[in-house]
Amino acid sequence: MADYRKMWESLGLNLEAHDQLMDILPPTYGTVFLNQENRPEAMEYFDFVFSEVHGQRIQELLDHKAADGKVIGAFCVYVPEEIIRAAGGICIGLCSGADIGTAQAEKVLPRNICPLIKSFMGFKLGKVCPYFESCDMVVGETTCDGKKKAFEILNDYVPVHVLETPHMKREKDKALWRSEVRDFLTEVEGYTGNKITLDSLRQAIKESNDKRRALLRLNELRRYDPAPISSKDCLLIEQIAMYDDVSRFTAQVNALCDELEKRVQESRGVTEPGAPRLILSGTPMALPNWKVPHVIETSGAVIVAEEMCTGLRYFENLVPEEGENIEQLVEAIADRYLDINCACFTPNEGRMKKLVTLAEELKADGVINCTLAFCDPYLVEANRVEKVLKGHHIPLLNLETDYGQEDSGQIKTRVEAFLEMLDK
Amino acid sequence: MADYRKMWESLGLNLEAHDQLMDILPPTYGTVFLNQENRPEAMEYFDFVFSEVHGQRIQELLDHKAADGKVIGAFCVYVPEEIIRAAGGICIGLCSGADIGTAQAEKVLPRNICPLIKSFMGFKLGKVCPYFESCDMVVGETTCDGKKKAFEILNDYVPVHVLETPHMKREKDKALWRSEVRDFLTEVEGYTGNKITLDSLRQAIKESNDKRRALLRLNELRRYDPAPISSKDCLLIEQIAMYDDVSRFTAQVNALCDELEKRVQESRGVTEPGAPRLILSGTPMALPNWKVPHVIETSGAVIVAEEMCTGLRYFENLVPEEGENIEQLVEAIADRYLDINCACFTPNEGRMKKLVTLAEELKADGVINCTLAFCDPYLVEANRVEKVLKGHHIPLLNLETDYGQEDSGQIKTRVEAFLEMLDK
Ligand code: SF4
Ligand code: SF4
Ligand code: SF4
Ligand code: SF4
Repeated sequence: MADYRKMWESLGLNLEAHDQLMDILPPTYGTVFLNQENRPEAMEYFDFVFSEVHGQRIQELLDHKAADGKVIGAFCVYVPEEIIRAAGGICIGLCSGADIGTAQAEKVLPRNICPLIKSFMGFKLGKVCPYFESCDMVVGETTCDGKKKAFEILNDYVPVHVLETPHMKREKDKALWRSEVRDFLTEVEGYTGNKITLDSLRQAIKESNDKRRALLRLNELRRYDPAPISSKDCLLIEQIAMYDDVSRFTAQVNALCDELEKRVQESRGVTEPGAPRLILSGTPMALPNWKVPHVIETSGAVIVAEEMCTGLRYFENLVPEEGENIEQLVEAIADRYLDINCACFTPNEGRMKKLVTLAEELKADGVINCTLAFCDPYLVEANRVEKVLKGHHIPLLNLETDYGQEDSGQIKTRVEAFLEMLDK
Repeated sequence: MADYRKMWESLGLNLEAHDQLMDILPPTYGTVFLNQENRPEAMEYFDFVFSEVHGQRIQELLDHKAADGKVIGAFCVYVPEEIIRAAGGICIGLCSGADIGTAQAEKVLPRNICPLIKSFMGFKLGKVCPYFESCDMVVGETTCDGKKKAFEILNDYVPVHVLETPHMKREKDKALWRSEVRDFLTEVEGYTGNKITLDSLRQAIKESNDKRRALLRLNELRRYDPAPISSKDCLLIEQIAMYDDVSRFTAQVNALCDELEKRVQESRGVTEPGAPRLILSGTPMALPNWKVPHVIETSGAVIVAEEMCTGLRYFENLVPEEGENIEQLVEAIADRYLDINCACFTPNEGRMKKLVTLAEELKADGVINCTLAFCDPYLVEANRVEKVLKGHHIPLLNLETDYGQEDSGQIKTRVEAFLEMLDK
């Protein structure tokens, strides 16, 4: 591994805190990922990307910035990355999955707040995340109370542009959201100093769609029994999707799919045929949060889909590429994003339908709905998930967790009891 | 007191649970209210109303219903009561301030959710609130995550119409909100079966404005030293405002103000002159939640304003009465409500400005910002309050509490330390 300390220093990172983070990551990664049996060979690229998570990719961002490019961070899959890239920017997902800088975060945030919010605030105040420190501006949204209000504080430390995501999906909400996306385009043009053209926008849409198609192809392959790839590896790929170079990433996912297709033909998989098949649903699992999938998959089950923002919600809908002018493309982008099934909407029927359809299509034996502590949208919606799945006789396990490891044992016990109950 | 058991039975109340509630209320009321020294005589009306809280007023609602009138419940001061009354309905504030039915509420809600939400769900599932049981429908809103999502569940038990409150206050948000208020008018007309006319709407606006004017007059009188009335009594009045008959209530508040004006002339008040003067700000204190004001005022300070939804935010803005047609009046109503300074908005500058102005105008010695546990909008906004008040050298005490009494002692200690620090 190259020596990146100078680079980190130039970003103003707190090297001591950063070292602590970098000390934890590789051994955890080894236990969670490298220990898996029958791993596809093409995972090598993603292992490499992860080993360079604060190295090579950061260098690429800094090179981009040195050439007058902008790096823009986002905390939610509602932020239209196409628009950022069409203006020559790079969009980086900053949803943070580790308990770092908690003490600093708690100086400005309440103690009882979702760990994801505490994490990104801690990353910023503690200066431990080179992605965050590379961002010239970040894009917030009004999806949930905690984030919406935390962005007011974050704006003291880095410029934040907040998109107003509506809370329903009627025509008038669509109109508001389209207007937000139009204004965002203007803002990004101003910020990057680059005019977005019909060509650059169409090109960016195509690239994002290609990425989504590759991820959809990967997910299609998981319907087979035995599943040719683990959920942990898919989750890692979905996490890497948020920050890697788009074309390179897409090519590598497709290369992985080529290998998985052969596996399927040979009926080779990561488990024995007939292993219990689960769908994982809930709040995003941001890098390096792999706790629950690790518990589930080391309990003998296989997860065949992540109905989450680090998962299907990130890539299941494409943006129509046909629009004849910028205005039409922007509408197409806005409408595609509004289709995402976030619990921030009321009601969020799309998610309920999706869960039922997925369970049927993927022949899943049950659903595990996993929510971050203090996340009201998803914790309250768990009641709706329960109601709908019960109506379809689909077994459900609701879990609530955070970024600590203290509850791993308890989660394992509950997952094992659930699997026993499934009688597989 | 009349025997209302038959009435309560007819509403389907759980009489046993209801008895428990009614056993607690009078002694608490005695300690908190009747024990106060130098109470204005005109508080007698409000004492009476409270003693009949589940009696006479409920009888009035049932008489209204027997004459084909509708009773519509609300959980937020964004719900335009004028529109409900213009259609011949009665609007009742249901924001619940007691820990009842918690076990039932926790069957459908997460444990770690704001006590106000748990309370209204517990009231409904436990059938303990005759107001709730009198409501033909209730109006929800998308102000905060917990309520927004809880309304999906509540809708299983009573019809809920949800108003989408936007989360910013720009022109496009105003347009969305105006459209929500217009649609609400149509909904209410359909629900009550009564067409709203220019006259009935103007009349309802006038009545609500008269109520607001009376409450403003009451609050104006609190600027004098010694304050002629306690915060506890004012809070009680503000709580009763949410459910009492509008004209009767207005007349009684004005009668009280007549008495207070005399007190002011005679320099008579509820404390000695020079007692520390505080502003109470934060989340609503719904009936019968009087814990914090009781602690503060029994510690020797006097609260001179409630910058809360059970307080100033409920009455500080009037609706212009001049509109020439229904459309104009509806716009005036929508705009007036959008002006409320709720932490659900980002940013919520209006509240910060208001706090500073109030502190100056009322010669307050400090601000106590009191937030219900797990309320992300207000808990995160506490950081902004701190920043702004510090900038104006206005002392601040942030409190976080719930509906239990366990923390009363701890709150008292902190309030006393704060008062000592003020050196008054
Ligand atoms: S869960 Fe909702 S708020 Fe969170 S990333 Fe997904 S869409 Fe955004
Ligand atoms: S997990 Fe929930 S509370 Fe946390 S940021 Fe996402 S939507 Fe907000
Ligand atoms: S605090 Fe906000 S959500 Fe609560 S009653 Fe007031 S305006 Fe409504
Ligand atoms: S106190 Fe806060 S969390 Fe509770 S209902 Fe009001 S805004 Fe929502």
